[in-house]
Amino acid sequence: MDSSQFRQAAHAAIDQIIDYYDNIEARPVLSNVEPGYLRELIPPGIPQTGEKWEDIQKDIEAKIMPGLTHWQSPNFLAFFPANSSFPGILGDMYSGAFTCAAFNWQCSPAVTELETIVLDNVARLIHLPEDYHSTGEGGGVIQGTASEAIVTVVVAARDRYIARSKEQWVAEGLTEDQIEEKVCTLRGRLVALESDQAHSATKKAAIIAGVRCESIETVMGHFTLNGDLLTRKIEDLEKRGLVPFYLTVTLGTTPTCATDDFASISTALSTYHTANPTKPKIWAHVDAAYAGAALVLPEYSHIPSIWPTFADSFDFNMHKWLLTNFDCSCLYVKRRRDLIDALSITPSYLRNEYSDRGLVTDYRDWQIPLGRRFRSLKAWFVTRTFGVDGMRAHVKKAIDIAEVFTELLEADRQKFELVAKPAFALNVFRIYPPPKVAKAVEDDEKEFRRKCNEVTKKVADRINKEGKIFITSTVLGKGDESITAIRVVAGSQSVQVHHLEEAFKIISDAVDAVWKEDLMAQESAIKDQIELQAV
Amino acid sequence: MDSSQFRQAAHAAIDQIIDYYDNIEARPVLSNVEPGYLRELIPPGIPQTGEKWEDIQKDIEAKIMPGLTHWQSPNFLAFFPANSSFPGILGDMYSGAFTCAAFNWQCSPAVTELETIVLDNVARLIHLPEDYHSTGEGGGVIQGTASEAIVTVVVAARDRYIARSKEQWVAEGLTEDQIEEKVCTLRGRLVALESDQAHSATKKAAIIAGVRCESIETVMGHFTLNGDLLTRKIEDLEKRGLVPFYLTVTLGTTPTCATDDFASISTALSTYHTANPTKPKIWAHVDAAYAGAALVLPEYSHIPSIWPTFADSFDFNMHKWLLTNFDCSCLYVKRRRDLIDALSITPSYLRNEYSDRGLVTDYRDWQIPLGRRFRSLKAWFVTRTFGVDGMRAHVKKAIDIAEVFTELLEADRQKFELVAKPAFALNVFRIYPPPKVAKAVEDDEKEFRRKCNEVTKKVADRINKEGKIFITSTVLGKGDESITAIRVVAGSQSVQVHHLEEAFKIISDAVDAVWKEDLMAQESAIKDQIELQAV
Repeated sequence: MDSSQFRQAAHAAIDQIIDYYDNIEARPVLSNVEPGYLRELIPPGIPQTGEKWEDIQKDIEAKIMPGLTHWQSPNFLAFFPANSSFPGILGDMYSGAFTCAAFNWQCSPAVTELETIVLDNVARLIHLPEDYHSTGEGGGVIQGTASEAIVTVVVAARDRYIARSKEQWVAEGLTEDQIEEKVCTLRGRLVALESDQAHSATKKAAIIAGVRCESIETVMGHFTLNGDLLTRKIEDLEKRGLVPFYLTVTLGTTPTCATDDFASISTALSTYHTANPTKPKIWAHVDAAYAGAALVLPEYSHIPSIWPTFADSFDFNMHKWLLTNFDCSCLYVKRRRDLIDALSITPSYLRNEYSDRGLVTDYRDWQIPLGRRFRSLKAWFVTRTFGVDGMRAHVKKAIDIAEVFTELLEADRQKFELVAKPAFALNVFRIYPPPKVAKAVEDDEKEFRRKCNEVTKKVADRINKEGKIFITSTVLGKGDESITAIRVVAGSQSVQVHHLEEAFKIISDAVDAVWKEDLMAQESAIKDQIELQAV
Repeated sequence: MDSSQFRQAAHAAIDQIIDYYDNIEARPVLSNVEPGYLRELIPPGIPQTGEKWEDIQKDIEAKIMPGLTHWQSPNFLAFFPANSSFPGILGDMYSGAFTCAAFNWQCSPAVTELETIVLDNVARLIHLPEDYHSTGEGGGVIQGTASEAIVTVVVAARDRYIARSKEQWVAEGLTEDQIEEKVCTLRGRLVALESDQAHSATKKAAIIAGVRCESIETVMGHFTLNGDLLTRKIEDLEKRGLVPFYLTVTLGTTPTCATDDFASISTALSTYHTANPTKPKIWAHVDAAYAGAALVLPEYSHIPSIWPTFADSFDFNMHKWLLTNFDCSCLYVKRRRDLIDALSITPSYLRNEYSDRGLVTDYRDWQIPLGRRFRSLKAWFVTRTFGVDGMRAHVKKAIDIAEVFTELLEADRQKFELVAKPAFALNVFRIYPPPKVAKAVEDDEKEFRRKCNEVTKKVADRINKEGKIFITSTVLGKGDESITAIRVVAGSQSVQVHHLEEAFKIISDAVDAVWKEDLMAQESAIKDQIELQAV
């Protein structure tokens, strides 16, 4: 493919992409292919001689499109949004064109320096205190995903805890052998903590880092971690001889977008460390993967001000709700040395004053992989194209639309019940059984819950099978107490109020249909019983 | 940015990218900016209201370009190539447009299914035995980097070793507490092995996984690991109470592109396991990050046939020498369950027959991060656009050009000495001191080496400072025995024979200049001494 063929191919691709965005609403949001659909469409093997772009491009609509779920569609109300945008796509085009394995500053200074500048800008945009800016001892780095960021900080937290423990043992005059033995024992007892509402990424990070992970149970209906729950858990761990070294706290949990009680967690950690001055600090990480984008709004700007009192790191994904196509997860740390000490494989005698003074950043030491793409370009293009106002308007629109949806739910209390406080454009609700059934079981809490769960599950499945909108169902709590709920969150660029009004109608109609089926099934069961008794 | 603004912006971006590629040779290959150059060019903060694309685009040439090192330039002869290509850029455009956090099959079936198909195709392209294809118990997955792939397999290897040890302890009738104690001790003794020529990624992976890492010293001049060296190392570890569980072997090491002796390593491992039937298998990983691309050529096709006898996994980067812009690292495993068992956070009762039968692959369980981009698109476009012939021609061209360069080096034995066997388009050589100096120290091996190292370093620095070509210098061996060498490898799409001929001239001229300086410095020192004596 020479330059002129590329020009032609790229123009054709741009046209196809524009057409895709302009008409995305007309496509069924959810792919309904069967496993293995693509093997049947694509001949095996690579052609001996090259093919023309026209032939390759044809296959995108014919073979790829049927297997895509359209995350940019206004009818995509599942999981969390994964915003893409035109300036973001332009950023990745240049990143591809400039391809350079920028594993250190010298490999391409612009890749490193733009990342530092853009992340400082984003820090200011989301009102992150100076503690996390590169101008102090901290700084930001673009990771691929929030889960990768958590692996990175869990490893750094583990190694910092061990290093500080070792320092103390050295000060106590222990021998090298004794210290090695103690480190070995310590490793086996380290525990990463999370709440039962935290993202599974903490569990996975603990597996990778080879440490234990324990969940702190939250209270049903609140779904938030607080200082008391944390203190009790730490006491429990210490009684069992285990050592908490890391904690994920969440701004906007995956199931309900709940926010942990930062103030009481900060107090609890501070009280614990004051009472245990010889114990190394527990690393606290604020996971705001989705909801962090809301910090662009002035009404949320007070939230991060508490973090420096306890949080060593913070992460949010511009690729969720902030218009930057995947991947652009912004990880900030209060002390960049914590990352470098753990992840640098450069022996200390090779470190230079530039690195330490922050003049030259080698981001390979802030992350797991060695090489890196030029990801800051897309964040730069996006922030400049939308401006502060544009990004605020985008986030605010989703929150406003979600409020309309909340009102619709609350206006029909025969069908719907919110099971968590709506937050950050997410509504979580369950469906009641048909009124006749609801009345029959209203005094039996457990049976009532069981019926609600059953109906909610049926409604969710019916909606996704129908495929006009895509929603996620979730299970809150455990065992008999558990509640099945539907999550609706709309954050795409194209979504408007009327989409959520239509979505509400689709859901409401699905409830009617499930209720009808349910009653028919009951009547038929009664009929069968009568017939059976008549025999 | 609406659709029509995007069309205009994208066309302008395409024009700029084409112009960049068409005229890349005219740019100085190495950026010569000073640390912090970009802060001075970019005003801090994000504009309140959005900017126009025309204004943003201007900054690419004015502010970003000066800080770029041009990896696609034919004058880039450093590190290893990081190929980009037009079809690869098109692939990432669509990946951005379709942005979907494809963490499981259902999130977008096409993302998963195309990856499986493309990786099977690539497996056949590089003559990888069926053991690593998805049609058996193995399969491939696209990782971001070869270093990320190594972290993934080290974690899987660690957990497989522990799981198999546990099984045995259960069979021996040990209690749960006893087993926990033994696992704790085992974790502290596990050792990941590599040769001293292996990429530092293994050391970093061991840090992340929380295990030890030891290097096996290779013989100077050969730079390869073999079965004897491995056996001796294992014996040494066992004497010290340590437990080898993982080994990186390399096809094409970073310093010299040496290839480990697979046959004898296979025999050594097999002998060890036959003699120790109760010990779990040591996981062997073949790291072919760069040189793996050469396996497209029939003349190398016999190499992978030995791997199934000992290698659990294999990885190579299409984003180095196989025309696919970063990132596209192809990791293959012989038994996909090894990855899933270690990295899945889905409890076993939630696993389904589809996953196990390979009908539905959830690639999140084959990697560290949760979300993933649609990276197979670019590999698909690249393989189809170039075809088997095009990819072979690209790799062959680099090897042929490198042979011409080898001949040039060998034709001037007064200046140059190859210090490793040229391999996979890489030449590694050192520079002799000026003939007069060389003659003076020729009987003192140590002093001769010291002089060679000094001159080689000076020549390398001079060339990179001049900036016409970009080369890497490297240090082989340790301490007094160490040899400083220059690496030259040309694998970009645009490179032709004449570029390497010119590069040779630049290097040769630099040698002349350094020799001249060296002799002048000597004469001046003699003069000073004479004057001093005259005082």
